[in-house]
Amino acid sequence: MKVKPVLDIYLVTDRDLCQGRPIEEIVAGAVRGGVTIVQLREKTCSTRQFIHLAERLKEIVAPANVPLIINDRIDVALAVDADGVHLGQEDMPCDIARALLGEDKIIGLSVESVQDARDAEFLDVDYLGVSPIYFTPTKRDLKRELGLDGLRQIKSFSRHPLVGIGGLNAANAATVIKSGADGVAVVSAICCAEDPEKATRELAQIVARAKTER
Amino acid sequence: MKVKPVLDIYLVTDRDLCQGRPIEEIVAGAVRGGVTIVQLREKTCSTRQFIHLAERLKEIVAPANVPLIINDRIDVALAVDADGVHLGQEDMPCDIARALLGEDKIIGLSVESVQDARDAEFLDVDYLGVSPIYFTPTKRDLKRELGLDGLRQIKSFSRHPLVGIGGLNAANAATVIKSGADGVAVVSAICCAEDPEKATRELAQIVARAKTER
Repeated sequence: MKVKPVLDIYLVTDRDLCQGRPIEEIVAGAVRGGVTIVQLREKTCSTRQFIHLAERLKEIVAPANVPLIINDRIDVALAVDADGVHLGQEDMPCDIARALLGEDKIIGLSVESVQDARDAEFLDVDYLGVSPIYFTPTKRDLKRELGLDGLRQIKSFSRHPLVGIGGLNAANAATVIKSGADGVAVVSAICCAEDPEKATRELAQIVARAKTER
Repeated sequence: MKVKPVLDIYLVTDRDLCQGRPIEEIVAGAVRGGVTIVQLREKTCSTRQFIHLAERLKEIVAPANVPLIINDRIDVALAVDADGVHLGQEDMPCDIARALLGEDKIIGLSVESVQDARDAEFLDVDYLGVSPIYFTPTKRDLKRELGLDGLRQIKSFSRHPLVGIGGLNAANAATVIKSGADGVAVVSAICCAEDPEKATRELAQIVARAKTER
């Protein structure tokens, strides 16, 4: 049976931002600090390396009941029996992904416009990544900033849980939660942190507090 | 039930070598000229583009009973119900690919050394791509030329059908077949040809003749 994911603190990995530290070390710190879901995003490594890294991350997150989500690659998710996939608008169409993964896996979808979010009303997905809240150097292929206004607008009609992504950190996480997000997705706020565990714990406290205040 | 593929003329696509012509046009010409198997290889496009292109190629090759093989990406192969996948040494391990694809799909494996071919004796694959017979500008990540000697050595023990690949064309195809290959895989010899249909027909005649002479 599918477990509904807790989206509060959603780490998206970025190998290039780990400052020479292994991704496993960053993820282990994030798990100790209270990350609730982890997405492995790899754009250049071989399929075999991708699978091996996913296997190692699964060993780190599974004992803490933190789901492991694979970006884009359904083949890698199937190979390691990951908890789900995250799909962009240029990745595999959601209906095909659902057919290949089955009902029990988590499927997340990036929406980059209010129209994308409207189209997603009819899709069998488990959350939407609302992107980008702010512009960020880690994703350069996005058309325009959706902003807090876009997030609020999507929240007003969407039946799906929402995760904000794009330029999020300890300074703006509370605002994003108060604008309707169920969680904040971060890349550099954890991957670049001197102490990923401490950075995650701080974010978790901010998100928890913001949820009581909205 | 799995159909044993005819490996005689094995086209591997390369978008960059099509000289501005759509891959569909090259493949359609190759089918008219007698290609026996087609591998779609894409290294940079999005998953969605890859799937759409694979769907279009399937429509072109299926009526001629020419199998469509997807390079590396089991997810794309599953999404379009392709006839199989071709795996490199850095792609998904063969046993996992077989578990995901089932018994009826074709799995090909690149071997780049005699040792790779020895290791493949124990694998459930349908053919080996013996690579590279000659060095070629279309694959720059290979260690060293296996040559006709390497092909003959692998032929002496391997239980798998063998496809030679790497720098193959009308001038050397007969020698490769006479050295033990069941088929020749070509990239530029068809993709770059002014008339892909004619180039394929010429190769098919050379391979057929070489098989009667060995």
